[in-house]
Amino acid sequence: SLPLTIIAGPCVLESRAQALEVAGFLKEIATRLGFGLVYKSSFDKANRTSTQSERGLGLHEALPILAEVREVHGVPVTTDVHLPEQCALLAESVDILQIPAFLCRQTDLLVAAAETGRIVNVKKGQFLAPWDMRNVVAKITSVGNPNVMVTERGTSFGYNTLVSDLRGLPIMVRETGAPVVFDATHSVQQPGGQGTTSGGQREFVPTLARAAVTTGIAAVFIETHPDPDHAPSDGPNMVPLAEFEKLIKSLLALDRLVKSEGFGQ
Amino acid sequence: SLPLTIIAGPCVLESRAQALEVAGFLKEIATRLGFGLVYKSSFDKANRTSTQSERGLGLHEALPILAEVREVHGVPVTTDVHLPEQCALLAESVDILQIPAFLCRQTDLLVAAAETGRIVNVKKGQFLAPWDMRNVVAKITSVGNPNVMVTERGTSFGYNTLVSDLRGLPIMVRETGAPVVFDATHSVQQPGGQGTTSGGQREFVPTLARAAVTTGIAAVFIETHPDPDHAPSDGPNMVPLAEFEKLIKSLLALDRLVKSEGFGQ
Amino acid sequence: SLPLTIIAGPCVLESRAQALEVAGFLKEIATRLGFGLVYKSSFDKANRTSTQSERGLGLHEALPILAEVREVHGVPVTTDVHLPEQCALLAESVDILQIPAFLCRQTDLLVAAAETGRIVNVKKGQFLAPWDMRNVVAKITSVGNPNVMVTERGTSFGYNTLVSDLRGLPIMVRETGAPVVFDATHSVQQPGGQGTTSGGQREFVPTLARAAVTTGIAAVFIETHPDPDHAPSDGPNMVPLAEFEKLIKSLLALDRLVKSEGFGQ
Amino acid sequence: SLPLTIIAGPCVLESRAQALEVAGFLKEIATRLGFGLVYKSSFDKANRTSTQSERGLGLHEALPILAEVREVHGVPVTTDVHLPEQCALLAESVDILQIPAFLCRQTDLLVAAAETGRIVNVKKGQFLAPWDMRNVVAKITSVGNPNVMVTERGTSFGYNTLVSDLRGLPIMVRETGAPVVFDATHSVQQPGGQGTTSGGQREFVPTLARAAVTTGIAAVFIETHPDPDHAPSDGPNMVPLAEFEKLIKSLLALDRLVKSEGFGQ
Repeated sequence: SLPLTIIAGPCVLESRAQALEVAGFLKEIATRLGFGLVYKSSFDKANRTSTQSERGLGLHEALPILAEVREVHGVPVTTDVHLPEQCALLAESVDILQIPAFLCRQTDLLVAAAETGRIVNVKKGQFLAPWDMRNVVAKITSVGNPNVMVTERGTSFGYNTLVSDLRGLPIMVRETGAPVVFDATHSVQQPGGQGTTSGGQREFVPTLARAAVTTGIAAVFIETHPDPDHAPSDGPNMVPLAEFEKLIKSLLALDRLVKSEGFGQ
Repeated sequence: SLPLTIIAGPCVLESRAQALEVAGFLKEIATRLGFGLVYKSSFDKANRTSTQSERGLGLHEALPILAEVREVHGVPVTTDVHLPEQCALLAESVDILQIPAFLCRQTDLLVAAAETGRIVNVKKGQFLAPWDMRNVVAKITSVGNPNVMVTERGTSFGYNTLVSDLRGLPIMVRETGAPVVFDATHSVQQPGGQGTTSGGQREFVPTLARAAVTTGIAAVFIETHPDPDHAPSDGPNMVPLAEFEKLIKSLLALDRLVKSEGFGQ
Repeated sequence: SLPLTIIAGPCVLESRAQALEVAGFLKEIATRLGFGLVYKSSFDKANRTSTQSERGLGLHEALPILAEVREVHGVPVTTDVHLPEQCALLAESVDILQIPAFLCRQTDLLVAAAETGRIVNVKKGQFLAPWDMRNVVAKITSVGNPNVMVTERGTSFGYNTLVSDLRGLPIMVRETGAPVVFDATHSVQQPGGQGTTSGGQREFVPTLARAAVTTGIAAVFIETHPDPDHAPSDGPNMVPLAEFEKLIKSLLALDRLVKSEGFGQ
Repeated sequence: SLPLTIIAGPCVLESRAQALEVAGFLKEIATRLGFGLVYKSSFDKANRTSTQSERGLGLHEALPILAEVREVHGVPVTTDVHLPEQCALLAESVDILQIPAFLCRQTDLLVAAAETGRIVNVKKGQFLAPWDMRNVVAKITSVGNPNVMVTERGTSFGYNTLVSDLRGLPIMVRETGAPVVFDATHSVQQPGGQGTTSGGQREFVPTLARAAVTTGIAAVFIETHPDPDHAPSDGPNMVPLAEFEKLIKSLLALDRLVKSEGFGQ
């Protein structure tokens, strides 16, 4: 098993300056601690709870910034894609196309993403069982693209709450053969929980991320921000940049132990 | 309160001949029993469990057929829409644009549908609480289209199962002010429950539809088919045409009692 | 199918005077509207959220009062039983022994209740599927007592919330052959939802009771109280006595329609 | 934080010979690996799915065996208690009285257990939220016994399925102040999932146990058996004795890392 990769960045791309600064900050930690980093930011929050919510810079303004982050800091980048026609353009600037959880069954989007040849990372819908991802992955591989990842981000559990079923991680490994990612940020989301925005439980990001790592997964996804309480999206569940390194160190220590001893198998 | 409307038809539009025949069959019952009918069929099943599943005739072949059904039989028609750019074209041929449950938070799709001025019927996502539909409806009315309906179609309950929380019907009335529809067909779906397709429990369609009608809702949505066991989609949860009239009679009788006595208020 | 029976009374037996008065009030309505009434009150709330909560008069003080209610008003009475050794004594004064939902799998309690020969009404645990009640009923009938009823009172749905799956009512009819009761009071409970007591949603009692009646069930269970907001237990989900008659009229009207037309079959 | 304790043994006490042999086997591992062991077996399975299921030796035959295990092998022992009047007698032979999950709200049982002065380990009901355990613990401490532990064993998730919400472990630490145990055996139970018995997913015991240990909990509960596939109870979720040591080694390695680095805080 390969060592743990970390997918991280602010939920939404706010500005060129912030993107370059945060990516630089994360890259420095990655180099020092010796882990693989993928930088993530969204150009558009297309499914916010309310139209009052901010959506981001948009595709055409954001893509050159992501390309610059990739070039300046030498890190692969990923962003989420919402419509089939966006895929080809995005594939020029990003390394991994991320399919949002709500859209994980939209065949045309999956196929368009697959046809770029880029890695496609599909988030498991909150309404799916882990074994349902077998069919989702097949939609991508059936057009000849074997580069697919799957991400757990919580399952509906009553109203306005998600639960993380850690059995789902080894089940997805077994059922899909794809690298499995645990999204610790959205797993602690409380959808619609604040009336016109979603709430979150930032304090449980480390709890769930550390637990998930013991299953021997490929990557952890953690959104991070210099000042989450003033972030335009997912503030309640993003980890402050100042706490990021400490959290990652705990994940890497657990990952080394788990993979060297073969615990997750 | 207005009498109960019935939204019905085969899940997917299979052929011109079948569409005209089924619509005629349903229209004859509607005229005889005196209820408002809306004919529904999908031109594309864009989010099937597997790529092996059939998807339908496609937009360009299906729209003239829906238009013909509308003209020949004098019934309003509805179909579901998956991408923003399809909305304007669809609005020429159908009376109600239906937003699929998985897509009920996609702002651009909701806005594009709203901007046609047609009635927009949003299915509540399996991952949403009833009160979350307030924000969904606001995305439509905020662009000046007051013609919005909301549809309950079940909520995630463990894996591969949905549950119908009937409290959600009056909650959606109170929170959105919109006419509320109960989709008895998809509420008994077992998502992903047959490996590469979704299963269903057709035997509970009458149970849930009758229960839902007691809350005084505006409409019931029931997919029906001449031969559900050989239908390309949603066969396990569609009602055979031969049983349709008997079921509708029971719904209308309950609806008359409930609304004449003011039970649902 | 027999007409709908109503099981009603204050959650907990507070005093002799109140019991006789409420039972008389209910009996007068039952006689006038022509329905079968069973009077219910608990002598001990043995599983309250907190030890701060009141528990009731206790077995020895309550049993003579229940016996007096039965004699004075000529109504069958029921109460819940918590320990095997209470069953024989209770059977002298009450017509139906009710097994609380949390205890529905305690074999010794079920057997002791069955051995009294009285009717045993088992509430389905919030943690059970409807089909699981087949084994529960068999624990009673296996000792030679065929007089068993089963009651739906909601299923765990996330934290501090219950959901009523109305499919469960016909499933329990099919799986157990026993008369099925819908407990509209505890189905709207919010367990633990007020910190040291359970909350409730009284406003949905009529919604769920009317919906349940359309499945053709045998009885509805509704707790009622002269002043629910000052009741020692289940106040948030009890119906005020002043609203009881109107609610029951709606249930009886629906029950007559459903059973005369055979809808629930 | 103290090092991880392991609570282990066959689900049900089958015979004196087996109890002494299994306890000896486990004790030898505990001594060699240096962990605290508590031996667990039930004298009575009082809430089996069906009356066809075996129940165990009974209180009077089992207690001397548990006492002998304690004396011969020098390990503390625990067993579950179902009725208030059993508590005092059990307290003579066992160190920890375990309250079954279904009974975690029965005030009289909790109080009777508390009054023995022994440690009381309450399993969280499948129908409770983690924060609801604050009131449960207060029922015990309110009678002057501070020796209480709480155990997570899964939460109802749809029908016939449990899910382990690992957030619940730190929540119970915070809300109750009591040592928190993770029961890896019953968390993978599928209640009622095999018709007349409960099923289970033995393969996920290590997955969940390792994940739980990363939260810094006090103990893990794992049922183990020489031949689980022929055990009278919980066979599908017990770990074979032959695999026990390897599993425990992985838990101890993770526990040491987590507690030495302070990850779980």
